[in-house]
Amino acid sequence: MVMDPDNLSVVLHSLKDLRLEQRPIPEPGPNDVLLRMHSVGICGSDVHYWQNGRIGDFVVTKPMVLGHEASGTVVKVGSAVKTCDRVAIEPGVPRDMDDANFCYKLPDNVTFEEGALIEPLSVGIHACRRAGVTLGSIVLICGAGPIGLVSLLVAKAMGASKVVITDLSQERLSMAKKLGADYAVTITKGNAPQALAKNVADMLGAPPQITIECTGVESSIQTAIYATQSGGVVVLVGLGAEMATIPLVNAAVREIDIRGVFRYCNTWPMAIAMLASGKVNVKPLAFETTKQGLGIKVMIKCDKNDQNP
Amino acid sequence: MVMDPDNLSVVLHSLKDLRLEQRPIPEPGPNDVLLRMHSVGICGSDVHYWQNGRIGDFVVTKPMVLGHEASGTVVKVGSAVKTCDRVAIEPGVPRDMDDANFCYKLPDNVTFEEGALIEPLSVGIHACRRAGVTLGSIVLICGAGPIGLVSLLVAKAMGASKVVITDLSQERLSMAKKLGADYAVTITKGNAPQALAKNVADMLGAPPQITIECTGVESSIQTAIYATQSGGVVVLVGLGAEMATIPLVNAAVREIDIRGVFRYCNTWPMAIAMLASGKVNVKPLAFETTKQGLGIKVMIKCDKNDQNP
Amino acid sequence: MVMDPDNLSVVLHSLKDLRLEQRPIPEPGPNDVLLRMHSVGICGSDVHYWQNGRIGDFVVTKPMVLGHEASGTVVKVGSAVKTCDRVAIEPGVPRDMDDANFCYKLPDNVTFEEGALIEPLSVGIHACRRAGVTLGSIVLICGAGPIGLVSLLVAKAMGASKVVITDLSQERLSMAKKLGADYAVTITKGNAPQALAKNVADMLGAPPQITIECTGVESSIQTAIYATQSGGVVVLVGLGAEMATIPLVNAAVREIDIRGVFRYCNTWPMAIAMLASGKVNVKPLAFETTKQGLGIKVMIKCDKNDQNP
Amino acid sequence: MVMDPDNLSVVLHSLKDLRLEQRPIPEPGPNDVLLRMHSVGICGSDVHYWQNGRIGDFVVTKPMVLGHEASGTVVKVGSAVKTCDRVAIEPGVPRDMDDANFCYKLPDNVTFEEGALIEPLSVGIHACRRAGVTLGSIVLICGAGPIGLVSLLVAKAMGASKVVITDLSQERLSMAKKLGADYAVTITKGNAPQALAKNVADMLGAPPQITIECTGVESSIQTAIYATQSGGVVVLVGLGAEMATIPLVNAAVREIDIRGVFRYCNTWPMAIAMLASGKVNVKPLAFETTKQGLGIKVMIKCDKNDQNP
Repeated sequence: MVMDPDNLSVVLHSLKDLRLEQRPIPEPGPNDVLLRMHSVGICGSDVHYWQNGRIGDFVVTKPMVLGHEASGTVVKVGSAVKTCDRVAIEPGVPRDMDDANFCYKLPDNVTFEEGALIEPLSVGIHACRRAGVTLGSIVLICGAGPIGLVSLLVAKAMGASKVVITDLSQERLSMAKKLGADYAVTITKGNAPQALAKNVADMLGAPPQITIECTGVESSIQTAIYATQSGGVVVLVGLGAEMATIPLVNAAVREIDIRGVFRYCNTWPMAIAMLASGKVNVKPLAFETTKQGLGIKVMIKCDKNDQNP
Repeated sequence: MVMDPDNLSVVLHSLKDLRLEQRPIPEPGPNDVLLRMHSVGICGSDVHYWQNGRIGDFVVTKPMVLGHEASGTVVKVGSAVKTCDRVAIEPGVPRDMDDANFCYKLPDNVTFEEGALIEPLSVGIHACRRAGVTLGSIVLICGAGPIGLVSLLVAKAMGASKVVITDLSQERLSMAKKLGADYAVTITKGNAPQALAKNVADMLGAPPQITIECTGVESSIQTAIYATQSGGVVVLVGLGAEMATIPLVNAAVREIDIRGVFRYCNTWPMAIAMLASGKVNVKPLAFETTKQGLGIKVMIKCDKNDQNP
Repeated sequence: MVMDPDNLSVVLHSLKDLRLEQRPIPEPGPNDVLLRMHSVGICGSDVHYWQNGRIGDFVVTKPMVLGHEASGTVVKVGSAVKTCDRVAIEPGVPRDMDDANFCYKLPDNVTFEEGALIEPLSVGIHACRRAGVTLGSIVLICGAGPIGLVSLLVAKAMGASKVVITDLSQERLSMAKKLGADYAVTITKGNAPQALAKNVADMLGAPPQITIECTGVESSIQTAIYATQSGGVVVLVGLGAEMATIPLVNAAVREIDIRGVFRYCNTWPMAIAMLASGKVNVKPLAFETTKQGLGIKVMIKCDKNDQNP
Repeated sequence: MVMDPDNLSVVLHSLKDLRLEQRPIPEPGPNDVLLRMHSVGICGSDVHYWQNGRIGDFVVTKPMVLGHEASGTVVKVGSAVKTCDRVAIEPGVPRDMDDANFCYKLPDNVTFEEGALIEPLSVGIHACRRAGVTLGSIVLICGAGPIGLVSLLVAKAMGASKVVITDLSQERLSMAKKLGADYAVTITKGNAPQALAKNVADMLGAPPQITIECTGVESSIQTAIYATQSGGVVVLVGLGAEMATIPLVNAAVREIDIRGVFRYCNTWPMAIAMLASGKVNVKPLAFETTKQGLGIKVMIKCDKNDQNP
């Protein structure tokens, strides 16, 4: 293990105690690879850990390196690993060992920045799968931040016929329209959930069968329930306060399933195939984030010599 | 339409305004039958309408005859109906017309009182179907009232390997043990939901995969979420306050589905077959209710000349 | 009922006895509409009835008007019907009565010819639903006739990442490539099913998870089974001989589900929405059929004054 | 590795070349255990390998020890293993390593002979899961051999309301009735499949929704298809000739799913719980097999000093 002055890391020591510090670089074990990071996206959960010190049962009790939306280049490999160069990372603990597990080779036509967006794209894939989006689905997405937008991209790729998206920000909604949203609803703080739900139904001609809630805000969760068609599904992707007050009787008697998501599983190869084939285009999202810094998605470019996507 | 002094009905005029009054007896139309009621169970929802004037979006705006768990004898038939005598009633509006729709003939070995219990039994069938109970399921049932008990009977009939049931009342829990519950947990008001959840997991050796919540009480819904295994299902059968405060982040990040039930569908023929074959035995439940009046299930016996089950 | 010299119909009297004859025009009942037909597609099943006198248990025992892929204009309505003009027809017996059931109004930007293609498109939707096609599915379609091609269109719209299609005809395969097929395999009579299966797997890098068999030919069904990944699905859309000899042990021990399709259900509104939004483009298919008569799909244009699509 | 004169094994060298021979006893590795076998059932697949030299793609190319339905006592453990004594064996290659993987401790009230029956019981569990047996299912089981009988036991435990079973042997059908079959149909060689199917429907009052085919005989598979209700499921458990001629158009247009089974997965803990709780009683089956040798199930008792179950 050597101290490398270039392994500058964002480390959360405890609630609100975030430090930028050098970390030792471990020598890769037989099944490990060492990566030179290229692009790392900042995720809402990174911010949530920083500001709240926890997400549900996951509590920060010791220093934790932030940043799990990442791509980079393999620079050193363990004895059991066959080399692979440009990779996207699936951040997790693999159950079985094989070649460079949880690093997926990026095809030449997929950029590092797209590679770093596979992690949030995976959240969108998992959310749409849990929601059961299929050909002809009518979908409401609450929140046009990065997760709302990738959910939009995936819902469209799965055949959703109409997607309506909501946000406080006009700018985010414009991006959503560019990415394929059929309708956009600007939210104003203080909007009554039931009135909003009615607006959505009027706009679509019928209530959405599926709502993907990506804000974690209590009033938005309430809107999600009121807005969804009887027999439909609300998927909770956004994370807010531990306890939430919601119209549970309304949901129960109308048989609206409320389903959460825990990250994703089995999504990387599919996401890479979708990016390589152009079936899902995250470039506008990536472009916006780095070129204009407009807050859809902030991407850290780690390589001083290569600041292109 | 004739006024019949014997058609004494329990009519809810509006919130808390319950009256016992004679109602006119309609002449059956071509597809209708007229029944002499024999046994009518009192349902928690009857009490809920009486005390709250509404359940969710269903509001009492005009006089409403209470009592939908019922069996009786066909005494007059419309021109298009073939006679059938002893029947159980599926209370609802049929979509297609056929012979005496939504009246199901009772086999000789099924009593009227069992017939009147088919409606609550159907709630249990629908709840267990929505929960996905199957061979080897480990199930927590919150509440040992009539719906908790029928859910217990059905869960066992579907192959659940272990069922644990909770209630405030020792007496109801004893009945639950008689009906097949593997474990019973006595609740004390003020029990912390998370502590209760841990008790249940310790008792079973693992958290239940499925929780069927039959009380509608906020703290019990919280317990249901904390107690259920990650990836499991909470089914909401009990109805409480319109708004409930629940640990939604805990449910979401552990991917616990929250599913409500709206009554039932396609359950009568199956329920009758189960009663006729002895696969589900509701007699202890029925017996208890009428002979001892002990509050599991109150049954109104309408026929002065036949007060037997 | 009046005899109208313009109601020229294609009537199958019995096996191989097909006649072109005038039929009386019935007066519409209260819930009926009378249509002037515009476009009618010829379906493989029409040809099958003609050549075999039956499909499965459905036997031609009395004269049967052929043609169920159709669109037209409402020219007379029953007393209970609100007028609607340009419509596509869902050929079946509705269960409930409402306004002009089973005639769906065509939006202005959907042509009659597209309208007549909704019926075969519905077969593709139903087949892909039965197959469980979803985002990232790898799909083999056997046969590039009309049903193979609509299955291709729908599989792509549902998010299939790779579709390989087979046919004897180079010309049909070219059309399939135009419509979005990723790979095309030209079949030669006498190809061994197991060798073909291996070719498909080699081409894709892995066996397809789903095979949609649209030929009904025994050797093609055999290929479908051998080619499909263990744990996958073969959907049988093509209809061939009553009895087929297939590698059933191979399918069984590899847990490949074999699923048939009976037409479709609940597909018209979705298909119309897909055509109106451009999500599925059947125009190349329709264009080819009428302009060149090249055998993908033969369309009969019934209106002498309007021979455009 | 030592040669132990007591490790007498049944070894299939190649097609029809079955030998009884001593085998060396390997020294257990760190994660292994060495067992003294107690009871070993003979499976139809053992006989199939012996008589045919293969099952599907699984071909006997080198000597293979037969016998995979087994229980025994742990007599030596590897360094990483915590001792456990009486066990049932799940015959397969585990993916992850943990304590004595794929040996499951038998509770005291489960006999060795019951333990050896967990393997066939698992086939029944897997078949009934694949079939989707649930509360109220009406089930036809073709064949009352060991697998037919365990499928019967499991179908009943999952809530099937009516099970009808067929066999050539009156004696096997008597056992099936003892184990809970509602109806038994004696087959005579030469029975026409369609006539048999009609008999079954007449007996039940309606066709079965699910058929579990346990014979592998072509005419029985044909009966299974004809007998099953439209929209139902045929599960193929029995293995016969590689190629089978079946009424595929009948199955396809009636949307009957044909599903195979490959052994089982995730069944041992559940099967043990069911045996321990008495929910499934395999004792009559075991008793019959050893005490009378009547051909339901032949069990080899390996321990000279303990020939009791």
